[in-house]
Parts: sequence; C-alpha cells; structure tokens
Amino acid sequence: MALIVHKYGGTSMGSPERIRNVAKRVAKWHRAGHQMVVVPSAMSGETNRLLGLAREVSPAAQTPQMLRELDMIASTGEQVSVGLLALALQAEGIDAVSYAGWQVPVRTDASYTKARIESIDDQRVRADLSAGKVVVITGFQGMDDAQNITTLGRGGSDTSAVAIAAAMKAAECLIYTDVDGVYTTDPRIVPEAKRLHTICFEEMLEMASLGSKVLQIRSVEFAGKYRVPLRVLSSFTPWDINIDEEAKSGTLITFEEDENMEQAVVSGIAFNRDEAKVTVMGVPDKPGIASQILGAVADANIDVDVIIQNVSNDGKTDFSFTVHRNDYQRTLDLLKTQVQPATNAAQVVGDNKICKVSIVGIGMRSHVGVASKMFRSLSEEGINIQMISTSEIKTSVVIDEKYMELAVRALHKAFDLDDPNAAGAKIGS
Amino acid sequence: MALIVHKYGGTSMGSPERIRNVAKRVAKWHRAGHQMVVVPSAMSGETNRLLGLAREVSPAAQTPQMLRELDMIASTGEQVSVGLLALALQAEGIDAVSYAGWQVPVRTDASYTKARIESIDDQRVRADLSAGKVVVITGFQGMDDAQNITTLGRGGSDTSAVAIAAAMKAAECLIYTDVDGVYTTDPRIVPEAKRLHTICFEEMLEMASLGSKVLQIRSVEFAGKYRVPLRVLSSFTPWDINIDEEAKSGTLITFEEDENMEQAVVSGIAFNRDEAKVTVMGVPDKPGIASQILGAVADANIDVDVIIQNVSNDGKTDFSFTVHRNDYQRTLDLLKTQVQPATNAAQVVGDNKICKVSIVGIGMRSHVGVASKMFRSLSEEGINIQMISTSEIKTSVVIDEKYMELAVRALHKAFDLDDPNAAGAKIGS
Repeated sequence: MALIVHKYGGTSMGSPERIRNVAKRVAKWHRAGHQMVVVPSAMSGETNRLLGLAREVSPAAQTPQMLRELDMIASTGEQVSVGLLALALQAEGIDAVSYAGWQVPVRTDASYTKARIESIDDQRVRADLSAGKVVVITGFQGMDDAQNITTLGRGGSDTSAVAIAAAMKAAECLIYTDVDGVYTTDPRIVPEAKRLHTICFEEMLEMASLGSKVLQIRSVEFAGKYRVPLRVLSSFTPWDINIDEEAKSGTLITFEEDENMEQAVVSGIAFNRDEAKVTVMGVPDKPGIASQILGAVADANIDVDVIIQNVSNDGKTDFSFTVHRNDYQRTLDLLKTQVQPATNAAQVVGDNKICKVSIVGIGMRSHVGVASKMFRSLSEEGINIQMISTSEIKTSVVIDEKYMELAVRALHKAFDLDDPNAAGAKIGS
Repeated sequence: MALIVHKYGGTSMGSPERIRNVAKRVAKWHRAGHQMVVVPSAMSGETNRLLGLAREVSPAAQTPQMLRELDMIASTGEQVSVGLLALALQAEGIDAVSYAGWQVPVRTDASYTKARIESIDDQRVRADLSAGKVVVITGFQGMDDAQNITTLGRGGSDTSAVAIAAAMKAAECLIYTDVDGVYTTDPRIVPEAKRLHTICFEEMLEMASLGSKVLQIRSVEFAGKYRVPLRVLSSFTPWDINIDEEAKSGTLITFEEDENMEQAVVSGIAFNRDEAKVTVMGVPDKPGIASQILGAVADANIDVDVIIQNVSNDGKTDFSFTVHRNDYQRTLDLLKTQVQPATNAAQVVGDNKICKVSIVGIGMRSHVGVASKMFRSLSEEGINIQMISTSEIKTSVVIDEKYMELAVRALHKAFDLDDPNAAGAKIGS
C-alpha cells in the first residue's frame, strides 16, 4: 500500500473505450490498496486540433498576450480528459474527482506555452486521498500568480506527473506509454535491442536529450532533482494483467548507483537525424570569435547543439556547429549575410544530410578506451566521422545520414548489447 | 461612450471565419469609444460533442459527483471560444483578454449542470476596461464556493451575459442571435408577422416561457430583476453596418411602461407543441386530492404546466394537466400504477397530439373581452378548446395539434397584428 502516480499518454486516452480501459487499470491499483493520483494527457489529436483552430483565427500568435490565449485554448484538451476519466472511474464504482491545474493549484511562472512549475499545493489532493478518492489531475498546465492559465509546452504532461509525484512524495510515478520501456537502442533499427530493467538517471537524461523519445527531457530532470522513482511501461498490456507483474514491468529510472550490480560500460545507443551542420571557414583565430558567431545565432533564437572549433592553421580556423534541421536555412542565411562580413570569414558551408549517433553509459566514467573503441568500430565499417562531442557519460559523433543504421548496429554489437548474457542484471529479458 | 455587453451565440462562433467577423464587429464598437465586454457561446455543435463523449464513457451520469465531471467537460467549449475570440481581436489590433468564469470570478451555487449565479466580482474586468482592453468572458459557467467548475445549463450563456451586464451596470446588453428580433409570432407560420421594436419585460417573459426560443427564460428573469436593458438583434448583418443603425436594430426589452406609447392590447402569439395532456377521471372531489395526484408527479421529477380541475359532478371530478411530451408515457404509467389505485379514480386517459397557443400582451391588464375574443376567433375556425389557462397578461388554450397553424394565423389576424398600421409605435417596420 503506497501513494502511486499514474500518467497516461494521448494514445491511451484516444477514445471512450480506451478511457474505460484506463479506468479499469487504475481501479485495479486502487482496489489493491494504493492511494492513486492519475495524470492523463489530452485525447490524441486534440491539442493539434485546438492549436489548428487558433492558427486559423490568428496565424501568427507571438506576443505574450496571444500566447496567453493559446494556453487558454490548448489547456482545455486535458480538462476534457480528466473529466472523462473521472466519469469512467465513477462508472467502475470508484469515488473519483478531477482537477484542472488551477484547482490544485499547480503554480507556474508566467511563460505562456512553455511555463515552468514553481510549486504544487498538496493539501486538497491529500484530503481527497485520505477520503478514499482517486484524484485525476490535468497534465501540461498550471496557473501563474495572476490566476492566468499556463501550459508547460508539448509533452508537458510527463513533467506534470513527475512534479505531482514529487510534491506528494509518491512511492513511484508510472508513465504508461506506447513503448514498453527504454531499450538499448531503437528495436526498429536493431532487432536484437533489449529492454533495460533499470537505467540510471544520468543515462536516461542523455538518452532523452539525444533523441530517444520515450520521456520528455524536462520530466527526467525533474525526477532527478526530486529523486522521484520513475517507471516507463506499456499501456498496451491488458488492464487485468497481474498487478505484481505490472509493477515490475517496463524500465525503472534509478538515482542510486547499485555497487553490487554488474555495470555495463555502455547502456544504450542513441541517435538523432533532426540536426544539420554548418561551418564558418577561415575565420581569424582570435579571442571573441566564438561568441561573435554564436551570439548572432542566439540572438535569432536558434538553438545550437554540438560545437567544434578546429585548431588554428596560419591564424585562421574553422568553426562548426549543429542546429535543428528546421533552422538550417535560416542559420545559413544569417551566417552569410551577417557573420561572414563581420568576421571576414572565407566561406560558409553547410550540410543537412547528417545524423548524430551516441553511446551512453554511466560505466564510461570508470572505463578508459570506450571512445576509441567507438571510433574504431565506425572506421571498420568505413564510416567517416565529421564531428565529435563528449561528456562524462556519453560520446557523440556526427556522420553522414546514410550511415546511421549501419553505425547504430555496429556499435550495438561492439559494446555487447546484442549479447543476451553480457550485460547482466541491467538488461531485460 | 458607454459600457456595452455583447453576447454571441454558437452559430456566430461556428468557424474561425465567423469568429474573425465577430471580432471585427466588436472592434468597431470598441473603436466607437465604448467599453466592451463580450460573452461568446461554445462553437456550434461543440457542447453536444463533449457531452456525447461523456455519454460514451458513462451512459448514465446522475450523481452529483458525475454531474460535477460533466460540468468540467462541458465548460471547455466556452473556454476555447473566449481564447479564439481574444486572439481574433488581437489580430485586429485590439488589446483583448479572455477569462473563464472562475477567473472573474462568477460565483454560483453547487447545483452542477443547472447552477445559479450568486455573485460576480467586477474588479478584474473593470481594471481591464479602464486599461482600454476588450474583455471576453465565458458564458454558461461559474465556480462554486469550493472552487469547482459549474455550468448554468443549456442556453446559460444568455444568462451569463445579462448577469455580467447587471454586475458591471452596463448601459445595454446586446444578444446577437440568428433571428433579427422578437416577432409578433413565428414568421414561418404567419408570413405577415412583424418584428417588435420594443417588448416589455413581462411580455417577453411570457413569450419566452411559452416557446418563443429567442432568449433563455432565466436570462429574461435576470434582466427583469436587475433592470438590464436587453436587445435581441441579428448576428447576420454585415459586421461593418453603420453602428448607429445597428444600435437601434432588433428588439429592445424594456422595463418601464411608456404611457405615451400607443399600447397594443396583444403584442404577440406564442405556441408550443412540446406538451402532452393527461386526465385522471372520476376522482372523489375532496380536499387534498390535487396534492395527492400532483405530489406523486412532482416526486417523479416531472414538471407540470397547465393544470385544470373541472367542477364537481356527483362528488366526482376530472383532473387534467399537461407535461412535457418526453415525460408523457412515464406520467401515464405513474398515474395508472400509483395514483389511480390510491385515489380510486375511474380512469386515466391522455393525449400527446396537442399544442398550446397563447396570446400575450401587457395591454390585456386594462382591456376586457380579450379572452372571449380569442375564444370566438377559434370557434369561428371550428377549433375545439380542450383546456384554458390565464394569467394577468396572457391567455393560453390547449387544442388539437393539427389546428396549431390555423389557430395562430386566425389569432394573429383577429388581434390586428397583420395590420402594418394598427399597432403603432410598438411594431417594427
């Protein structure tokens, strides 16, 4: 018997029938003696429908006043979901009550469409739980100090669920989604990929930020900050699956390194083809040049990922970085019209047919030679590395997009992730 | 320059294009120097869609807990509308802000799905108006003392608009709808029907309660209680119609009898075919018999309209009343199984092929012979009167449904409502 938070995605909430199935699953947990808080997303497609209406009315909503109205509109998708789920629970004979973010309240800053949660009042929810109720709370939204509705941005319901679990000091936050856990890599590319029983928080953060779309990255950060035990599991198992079996399924994100556990050096291979590479060639190698180039990019509100500055040659250097592929053309234009004249650069070139492949593992901290093994494996496949970026627990390379699958498969094999016995307790069956 | 409330129905808000047209109309009033508060309904069809989803999840929502969730769900339709309209106004260059009922707040009792407004705080709205903003407020909803969302029931947005106009002491509340005013009767039945320039509050109340669907009856009651000048006008005129012309269009509901105005005896003919008639025949004519019969009906939550008890004959009497046609069979069953045995009644009979036709006019107060003129007109058309009910300013008859159009036309003519000159200043051109 514990306080448990369940989060269900838009697909799980996609139809009245599916909502009734979510209710049956939650009812099972409640009847097993748990205090239950549930955070459902909007029905799949609903947020897009609502924002589509807004775009038809006003194609370019950008001022804070306009963004405030977008939040007013978009937040209704989750409000409908909580009402429907509470109704479905009541139809199951469970006493349930729904709350919009402002009713809890979930307090956020006033950054409309990308607000951050500041505090959650647990009093009302706790009183309901003590009275034996299941509490259903909207994800994705809150209220600012002036009682305006705010939203947390796309995928924000994961963050809401983790934040609520943190505020309620829940025993575990279960994220039900359309995959059954975190894998060593994408099984669509490597059929031998295996589900991880556990993954530590730092690895999950790297996997999430590197394009593994299982969890929204902010929810992982939040879970890390407040040490919320977080489990990703499938919403496609039958609702009446044995509860003990269900409670151990999926992937648990942990916060303590387990010394007794045989630690895999590399836990997973992440990849991402959303980026593009640009290079400013032949710029004078002098102090301030990096900030001169990146300052202009930041001013244009373009996010930069990997940054590389090559060693100087005759007082000139080449400066490369990657941006989101959607920002590729805008970045090139900006560099050519503003940065090139200002820095006296020789040339601006770019490539949007690249991908980034990364190996991630907490074990890399204490193992040498992991990166060189990665580079050797790629080289054996004849894959040229264009850029390299490293952190304590991951090494990323930028390569030609056409080699992506080949690289992922080669690395998955090289680091023994294919082997059903190699990685020990960390790898799921 | 005045404080004006506009209310737009679901048809006016039915698409992004129509919402942009509403915004243009409101912007015109704002630019003419008025302080504007706007109350839009949900987009047409949206409330039905939301309640349909709720029914699919839980077919029989009747407990207060379930009704609370229905309000949570249904209230989102208006929230989307206010956000979209505020966006459209901003796109017109007007500073606009939207509020859900709870943000104003509009306080109601806790009768979910049919709540009543208890108070409206005008402080936040007044501050916005002083700052030059157009304020867009959800209709149909409010918040109870425990911060739960409530709705006012179908058509409640009219009531919201009037209540807000009352709280803000607005100069006028304009209800934009899909008819261009209140007519002497339904023009689909009597092509000679004429729009009334003004109608007094009591007459409007009778017209509304008798089936003239222009305004929700509770909004008329509210307007009467707080003496809110209320105008019903068309939302189908071009948005750029001259504002002085627009301000005088439609029908104004007034609260002072204008002594100087030539008063028509009968202002309009209302009708309604939503009712059915039941008769308990041969009940003992003794004290308490009416409450014995109607008590059972009231206990079953069935609303009764016209009630007739005939004079006694041999110590027995016949007791007739009308109910909504949807309650007809349930009422018959109840009378036969419970009331007939309990009262020793001879027989229970019913008829659901009836209609109610009424003449309405404040002038009836001071004119004799109006009712008898009505009965004579019907008799001349060979129409048999089944039941009669009167109040100070209306006379209603129940007749065979098949004579409804004939009766309405005959009465419209008999009381000179066909005549373009007869009714003087009260009749619109």
